Amino acid sequence: MLHYRPPIAEYLFLLRDVFKIREYSHLQGYPDLDFNLIESIFEEAATLSREVLLPINGQGDRQSCSLDREGRVTTPQGFKEAYRIYREAGWTGLGVPEAQGGQNLPKIVTTAVLEFFGASNQAFDMYCGWGDSAATILGQYGSPALKELFLPRLVSGEWSGSMALTEAQAGTDVGLIKTTASPQANGTFRLNGTKVFNSGAEHDLTSNIVHFVLARVQGALPGVRGLSLFLAPTFMVDADGESTSRNGITCAAIESKMGLHGSATCEMQYTDAGAYLVGELNQGLTVMFRLMNHMRRRVGAIAVGVSELAYQNAREYVAGRLQGRAPSTTTRASETHADPLLEQPDVKRCLLQIAAFNEGARALLVWSSLLMDISERSSDASERHDAELRYAFLTPVLKGFLSDGAFANCVTAQQLYGGYGYVAGTGIEQLVRDVRLLSIAEGANGVQAFDLVSRQLRKGRGVAFRAIAAGIGRQIEQSSGGPSTVELANREAAALAEWERASMLLADPALSQAAVGIASSDYLYMTGLVLLGFMWLHITSSVRSGSYDAERGDDDRSRRLLRAQVFMERLLPETALRLRRIEESVLNLAMWPSHLV
Amino acid sequence: MLHYRPPIAEYLFLLRDVFKIREYSHLQGYPDLDFNLIESIFEEAATLSREVLLPINGQGDRQSCSLDREGRVTTPQGFKEAYRIYREAGWTGLGVPEAQGGQNLPKIVTTAVLEFFGASNQAFDMYCGWGDSAATILGQYGSPALKELFLPRLVSGEWSGSMALTEAQAGTDVGLIKTTASPQANGTFRLNGTKVFNSGAEHDLTSNIVHFVLARVQGALPGVRGLSLFLAPTFMVDADGESTSRNGITCAAIESKMGLHGSATCEMQYTDAGAYLVGELNQGLTVMFRLMNHMRRRVGAIAVGVSELAYQNAREYVAGRLQGRAPSTTTRASETHADPLLEQPDVKRCLLQIAAFNEGARALLVWSSLLMDISERSSDASERHDAELRYAFLTPVLKGFLSDGAFANCVTAQQLYGGYGYVAGTGIEQLVRDVRLLSIAEGANGVQAFDLVSRQLRKGRGVAFRAIAAGIGRQIEQSSGGPSTVELANREAAALAEWERASMLLADPALSQAAVGIASSDYLYMTGLVLLGFMWLHITSSVRSGSYDAERGDDDRSRRLLRAQVFMERLLPETALRLRRIEESVLNLAMWPSHLV
Repeated sequence: MLHYRPPIAEYLFLLRDVFKIREYSHLQGYPDLDFNLIESIFEEAATLSREVLLPINGQGDRQSCSLDREGRVTTPQGFKEAYRIYREAGWTGLGVPEAQGGQNLPKIVTTAVLEFFGASNQAFDMYCGWGDSAATILGQYGSPALKELFLPRLVSGEWSGSMALTEAQAGTDVGLIKTTASPQANGTFRLNGTKVFNSGAEHDLTSNIVHFVLARVQGALPGVRGLSLFLAPTFMVDADGESTSRNGITCAAIESKMGLHGSATCEMQYTDAGAYLVGELNQGLTVMFRLMNHMRRRVGAIAVGVSELAYQNAREYVAGRLQGRAPSTTTRASETHADPLLEQPDVKRCLLQIAAFNEGARALLVWSSLLMDISERSSDASERHDAELRYAFLTPVLKGFLSDGAFANCVTAQQLYGGYGYVAGTGIEQLVRDVRLLSIAEGANGVQAFDLVSRQLRKGRGVAFRAIAAGIGRQIEQSSGGPSTVELANREAAALAEWERASMLLADPALSQAAVGIASSDYLYMTGLVLLGFMWLHITSSVRSGSYDAERGDDDRSRRLLRAQVFMERLLPETALRLRRIEESVLNLAMWPSHLV
Repeated sequence: MLHYRPPIAEYLFLLRDVFKIREYSHLQGYPDLDFNLIESIFEEAATLSREVLLPINGQGDRQSCSLDREGRVTTPQGFKEAYRIYREAGWTGLGVPEAQGGQNLPKIVTTAVLEFFGASNQAFDMYCGWGDSAATILGQYGSPALKELFLPRLVSGEWSGSMALTEAQAGTDVGLIKTTASPQANGTFRLNGTKVFNSGAEHDLTSNIVHFVLARVQGALPGVRGLSLFLAPTFMVDADGESTSRNGITCAAIESKMGLHGSATCEMQYTDAGAYLVGELNQGLTVMFRLMNHMRRRVGAIAVGVSELAYQNAREYVAGRLQGRAPSTTTRASETHADPLLEQPDVKRCLLQIAAFNEGARALLVWSSLLMDISERSSDASERHDAELRYAFLTPVLKGFLSDGAFANCVTAQQLYGGYGYVAGTGIEQLVRDVRLLSIAEGANGVQAFDLVSRQLRKGRGVAFRAIAAGIGRQIEQSSGGPSTVELANREAAALAEWERASMLLADPALSQAAVGIASSDYLYMTGLVLLGFMWLHITSSVRSGSYDAERGDDDRSRRLLRAQVFMERLLPETALRLRRIEESVLNLAMWPSHLV
């Protein structure tokens, strides 16, 4: 049985002391941000997480979803009631603009909520968040009629949504999508085809489900340039917004998966399904990518949440598990005396490494959210543009680096349980199985790495990279002035130099695609490490501020400095290895014939 | 559905060309080793693996074992029949001395069989191998009466065995074991207590199960010095070896686990269970450690097997999965054209890294087996002693490094399947769940790492380490003479120097236990990498031999050289990172107060 203490104080510290959000009063909505309000939102989200979502997480895994002969999916016990509570509390419209019925809270606030909900019940969370997603798509690309019919009920959570991209033959390569859209006389379309790996495309939590479907209008070009995005509801909706007849959308099967058993992963059959075009014809990919990027940020937040949950539970387990003697126990009280496993240095190392990752990663999430807010809420076009470029650079890192790191951390946490980590009762093995999906879904991490090198790094002759590197350089300079941070700054400076070298090698447009592909994963990890080091400099420079100790006490400061040190001494040096591999890939011009692989 | 091609040719190459086992004719049993015989044994094991064990692996996972109210365990469909075939073919006595009814095949031959069986059905394999295990214990420590009563039927596989160490409060810390043994007037004992995590302690494959139980005789010392080893059968055995009444050993529960669902992990209740002492009173740990070391070698072989299975299946999947365009496809045949995923450089990188690990690891298994054979079969006492020391040094590496590596490889292989890797149908996610246990069971890998540094490295002032390092040095010298291997040798030389530096730091007896603990895991990985590099030099120097190409063709040679290169360029450089972390741990004398962790 897992327990969870959502990191509220952490987020407040990051918002107030590290990223000083009070200084961004020029951003729309920021002047209204009152820390008491923020804290009470975090407290409410934490309560829902601890008292409603976490208690049904384990049984959801054991029960799984089920599919009946009529194609109806039943979610595990408790999910329906939890969804009702979640919806009635208004969480689904948290980040949605007020004009669309939401609460207009900026990303810098909603990120914490994403982490808490994702941590406490990753499977349940996959049904959620469609208010924000729908507002993201329909807000910009939906026709007035579509917005009026669908947005309010998606924002209120009365209806949920689902993303229908993948087909059996078209995974990463969406250009191979075969689902067709036939134009009708009234301007709507009829969809025909089969979609797979549709999370939440059928369930019993809401009275209707709105599917966002990539399909090809008859006669359109093959490949990605012929794809359009459609909205197709499970139940057709009349002009008053009432659900009417069942649409031609049927759940043919649900997947049996490694984890996330509480989330229905559906194979969906579209048979003359009524649908509405969203955005321009043949511009489906552009619209869908907006949603995908939104999803990728979610992945990062959930990953950090699950990693935090794993950390908290492993720490509690080893603190209570009496096994072996501490190295400091020179004289044994008796042969039957045992110290907590926490006293073992190797156990401390594992916990500190996880904590050092989590805390740095959380700061990265908040910083990215701030950039996203700037890109959406600043009145200064050039500031918006600059923030958007940097945010785009960070997106594959949030998705790829944080999900892989979270998985590794969950495995390490599981290891600390010994045999009890492998059995179902403690709940930790479920986290390993659940979090594993985050490296695969929403664009597999190999694809994220390739996107980072081949698009984000090279875009505008490296403008985003240079802006980020310059910011890190300024922080290094600032941290070099503090006696407790100068050593950390020196280490980050070395890593930054390595990252700049790697970036220079990989930004070369003459480099072969093969070399880029081989080096991309190393570059993703290296980038993630340098960014987390940057975050640790940010954090530790805030810890030095005058008011810090008075509010939190010595232990809190010491704990952060210890984690920073562990990050810089043990995790960050991996950048040298990554650079070396990148150099090998680039300089050797590795040609690996397929038949020898 | 997984497929499997057991690597027979690989093993024959390693035995004949790399380790040249014909040159060890002074070892008892080696002169009888005929390569035709060996090949036919491998072929038979491969057939059993492919045709009997693999086909029931997936359904075993889906069905799991079940426990009825009388405490009887039913194994998944097909396991009983498979066990009958396995037993009747005589596999259980393969490595057992002839005097004990076995076939006396040396470890250098049986290792391949371990790999094949473990790969094709890891869960099933956990019920097997008790002929060898029982011979290991009873052969040396059993009284003549015990040997006579139990050994023949364990060697024939008519009965199976089980190892009963762990109790709820006593995992790694076996000194906390509470199970009691009360001496009886007739020289036997009565056991009382509860054991957990007992793999195969109850099942329907054999008519009797022989439990090897660590317990404390009443009045014995607390801690490990008061533990004795007992043999307790599920059914008592009369003087003729016939099973009679049920003993006081009951399966109270079976665990629900992350994987290995086909293997029953039992909680066993001992209630006045009749038992026989094995070995000397209070020497239980010594005897049990012999069995544990035997098990740890098994873990290494199974790990490599599962990693190989993951490699083969992922390679086949990506070769058949048409998705995206190869970098070499400059002009697209059409927008709907897609190349095999195998053409993606990042995919090639993943596969090559797995293959480079597997092939090096397999060589390490064979070399370790040769050392074990020398330690058991040489007539020269000093050669035996030297081999035993080196083998003991390698044991934690086989267990810890190979199991962690195999898990990472299975995760990478799963990643190559994209979404199909997360669903049950392809079978790859099962491998991730199953192989995960190997890092936890038979002494968690953290314990292996600590054993390597604190015992194996320091034993006899580092004699085993020095012998191994000297051997690597000689191989480097030899490989430096070959034009195709000199570059590989240079890289291994650099890694060797780093390893020697780390070993020197950690062998210092003045070093704190805390520093040893923090550095141990890095040292384990570093040692594993240097040893695999050593193996790659061995392999590539054999590839240069005259007869090689004629038999296998250019591709085979090129494939091995490519893997060697990938290992040396991409995997081996991690030694520098590991050394750096070890230096940080040692030089900073890291003191991490528990309350800050």
